[in-house]
Amino acid sequence: MTNIDSLLRADLRGKTPYGAPQLDVEVALNTNENAYALPDTVAEAIQRHVAEVVGGLNRYPDRDAVDLRRDLAAYLGHDLSVDNVWAANGSNEILQQLLQAFGGPGRTALGFTPSYSMHPIIASSTGTQWADGLREADFGLSAEHVRAAIAEHDPDVVFLCSPNNPTGTALDAEVIVAAVEACRGMVIVDEAYAEFAREPENTAVRLLVDHQRLVVTRTMSKAFGLAGARLGYLAAHPDVISALLLVRLPYHLSSLTQAAARGALTGTKQLLATVDEIRIQRDRIVATIRAQGLPVADSDANFVLFGGMADAPAVWQKLLDRGVLIRDNGLPGWLRVTAGTQSETTAFLAALQAVQTVNPELFDHTSSTKEST
Amino acid sequence: MTNIDSLLRADLRGKTPYGAPQLDVEVALNTNENAYALPDTVAEAIQRHVAEVVGGLNRYPDRDAVDLRRDLAAYLGHDLSVDNVWAANGSNEILQQLLQAFGGPGRTALGFTPSYSMHPIIASSTGTQWADGLREADFGLSAEHVRAAIAEHDPDVVFLCSPNNPTGTALDAEVIVAAVEACRGMVIVDEAYAEFAREPENTAVRLLVDHQRLVVTRTMSKAFGLAGARLGYLAAHPDVISALLLVRLPYHLSSLTQAAARGALTGTKQLLATVDEIRIQRDRIVATIRAQGLPVADSDANFVLFGGMADAPAVWQKLLDRGVLIRDNGLPGWLRVTAGTQSETTAFLAALQAVQTVNPELFDHTSSTKEST
Repeated sequence: MTNIDSLLRADLRGKTPYGAPQLDVEVALNTNENAYALPDTVAEAIQRHVAEVVGGLNRYPDRDAVDLRRDLAAYLGHDLSVDNVWAANGSNEILQQLLQAFGGPGRTALGFTPSYSMHPIIASSTGTQWADGLREADFGLSAEHVRAAIAEHDPDVVFLCSPNNPTGTALDAEVIVAAVEACRGMVIVDEAYAEFAREPENTAVRLLVDHQRLVVTRTMSKAFGLAGARLGYLAAHPDVISALLLVRLPYHLSSLTQAAARGALTGTKQLLATVDEIRIQRDRIVATIRAQGLPVADSDANFVLFGGMADAPAVWQKLLDRGVLIRDNGLPGWLRVTAGTQSETTAFLAALQAVQTVNPELFDHTSSTKEST
Repeated sequence: MTNIDSLLRADLRGKTPYGAPQLDVEVALNTNENAYALPDTVAEAIQRHVAEVVGGLNRYPDRDAVDLRRDLAAYLGHDLSVDNVWAANGSNEILQQLLQAFGGPGRTALGFTPSYSMHPIIASSTGTQWADGLREADFGLSAEHVRAAIAEHDPDVVFLCSPNNPTGTALDAEVIVAAVEACRGMVIVDEAYAEFAREPENTAVRLLVDHQRLVVTRTMSKAFGLAGARLGYLAAHPDVISALLLVRLPYHLSSLTQAAARGALTGTKQLLATVDEIRIQRDRIVATIRAQGLPVADSDANFVLFGGMADAPAVWQKLLDRGVLIRDNGLPGWLRVTAGTQSETTAFLAALQAVQTVNPELFDHTSSTKEST
C-alpha cells in the first residue's frame, strides 16, 4: 500500500480514466475514426515531409508552428490568415489551452449535454466550474434555450458543438450568434465533425468576421483521417491566439507533427474524398434503423445515435459478441455507431438486426420519448 | 479594440509568452539542444518506424503508449517495467500532468531557484501556489537547506532539478532522500540532463525502489538529440502512473511520436555517442572561461553558467552581434551557454574573448560573489 492515492487532488480520487475500451475487434465503429486508411499518395507526402525534418530533430520545432498555421488558414478560407489560427496536439489540447486562458478557478463554463464528454472533463482539470444547460427533447438547441441558459449561469465560456457529439445535431448560425450576443465571455464552437455536415458551408467559421469572442475548433482526426497524428486547431480573432501563447507549453507541437500535418494538407482533396462515401453510409444507417422502428437522431456527422433500447449496455455487448464494437456514451436507451466503410456498415446493420431478432427483450420501442423527425 | 484581453484570466494579463528568442544565427547555443544532427542510421530507423504507422493514421494511437513505455523502461534499467514509466509531449507536459494530479488550487509546489523556469510557470497555469526555497551561494543545495525549506513551506510537491538548469549543478542522493523523508508530498527530480552528468550512474532512478513518493522526469530532447520530436517521460511508482491516467488528455501522444521515439531508441548507442564529445566541450568551456578570470558554475549538464558581468544583457547582445546566440536567464551578472560542437564552442569562446577585450566595461570581476570552486 502506498499513500499516493491520498496525495491525489481530492476531486480525482476514485475516478477512472476517460476513454473507450481499446479492444481488438473486426469492426471498430466506436471512436468516430475515419474508416479509410490514408491513400498511398498522401501517405507518401507525409513521409516526404517527415523525411525533410528527421535529420534536424536535434533542434526544437518552430514554437509557433507558423507554416502549418498558414496552411490551415488557407484550408479554412473565409479570408483567415496565420494570425487567426492556432494548432495543438489534438483538439483536446486546444480546448485545454482555451480554458487555461479564459476559464480556471472562479470561472464557469456552460455546455449543453449530451455533448462531447471531454468538455466537462477538461473544465474540471483546469479548475473551471461546469454548468449544464442540457438539450431539448430532440437533442436540438434553440436560440431561446441557449439564451435562457446563459442568463441563468452567466458563464465565462460557452461550449457549443456542431455537429454535436454524440447526437450528430448541427446548429443553425442564429443559435451561435445568439450565444455570442447573450454572453459576456468566449463562445467555443467545437466543429470536429464539420466536414461531414449536410450543409458544410454552414460553418461557424464564416461568423468569425463579425464576432470577436467566437472561437471555432477543428481537428484533422475525423474527415482528414488523421486521428493518429493528433492535430487539432482553431480559428479565432488574433487576440485569442495571443492569449493562448501565454498558456501553451513551449514547443508543444513537434516537428514531426507539423511536418506530417503539412504533408497531409497537400493531399486535402484525396483525403476529403472519403467524406462523401462516409456520408452515404451515415444516411444509410439512419434510414435503415429508422425503418426498423427505432428512434434515430438526425446526423450531420460521421456517426449516428440510435435509441429505443430497454437495455443499451446489453445491446452493446451483444453487438460486441458479434464482432462489432460501437459506443455506449452512457445515455440511457441510446448507443452511438460510427459510419464505417460500406462493408463495415453492412456488418453493423446485420448484427443489429440479428440482436433485435434474437433478443427482442433488450428493445423497447414504446419507451422512447426522443424520436427525431 | 477587442475586449478579449479583459476576458483573460487575471493572472495572465500583461504577461509575455515564455521562450527564448527564435533567431536565425550561425551559432545557436541558447536552448541546450544537442549540437549534433541525427546519425543517418538513426534517422533511417525513425523513418522506417514512421512508415509503418502512416497508412494507419486514420486510427487513434495507443492511448497508453505501452510499447514505447516498455522500451523506455528497458533503457532506464534499474528493474523498471512498463508500469513504472509514463510518456508525454515533452517533459513540460509530464510536469503539467504531475501538477494537475498532485498540485492545483489550494496546494503548494516548492522549488529552488534559479532553476528551470517552466516549473513555476506550470505551477501557475495549474493553479498551484509557488514557494521558492532559493539556492545557496554556489548554486548548490544541501540536505539541511532542503529540509529547512520544506519545514517552512509544507509543500504538496517539491521540484528538484539535477543537473540543475541553468546552473548545471548536480545533487547528491542524500539531498533527494532528505527531501522525500522531510515532506509529506511528491518529490519530482527533473533529470532532463542526466546523461551529461560526470557521474551519470548517480541518477535518482536508482532511489525509486525505496521511495514511493519520488518521481524522476527525463526527456529525449537533450542527450538523445530529439528536441524536435517532443518526447518527455518519467519513472515512478505504478500508482503515480495510474494517477496521471486521470488527468492526461486522451490520445495525447501521437502514433508518429510513439513510432519515432521507438525508432530512435533502437539507435540509443549511436545517439548517446555524442554525449562524450559534448562533455569534452562543456569542460573546455568551464576551464577556458575560468582561466579568463570569470566565475563559472560547475556543470554536469550540456551547458555552462558563467558570471562576472556588470551588464550581462549587453554581453549577450555583443555576442549575438558576433553571430553567437546564448541565453540570458535573467540572472543578474550571469549568462548560460550550451556546449556545442567543437567548432561552435570555439566560435563562442573566441567571441567571448573578443567582447572582453573590446568591451571590458561590461565585465566586473570583483563584483562576483558566487565564484564556484
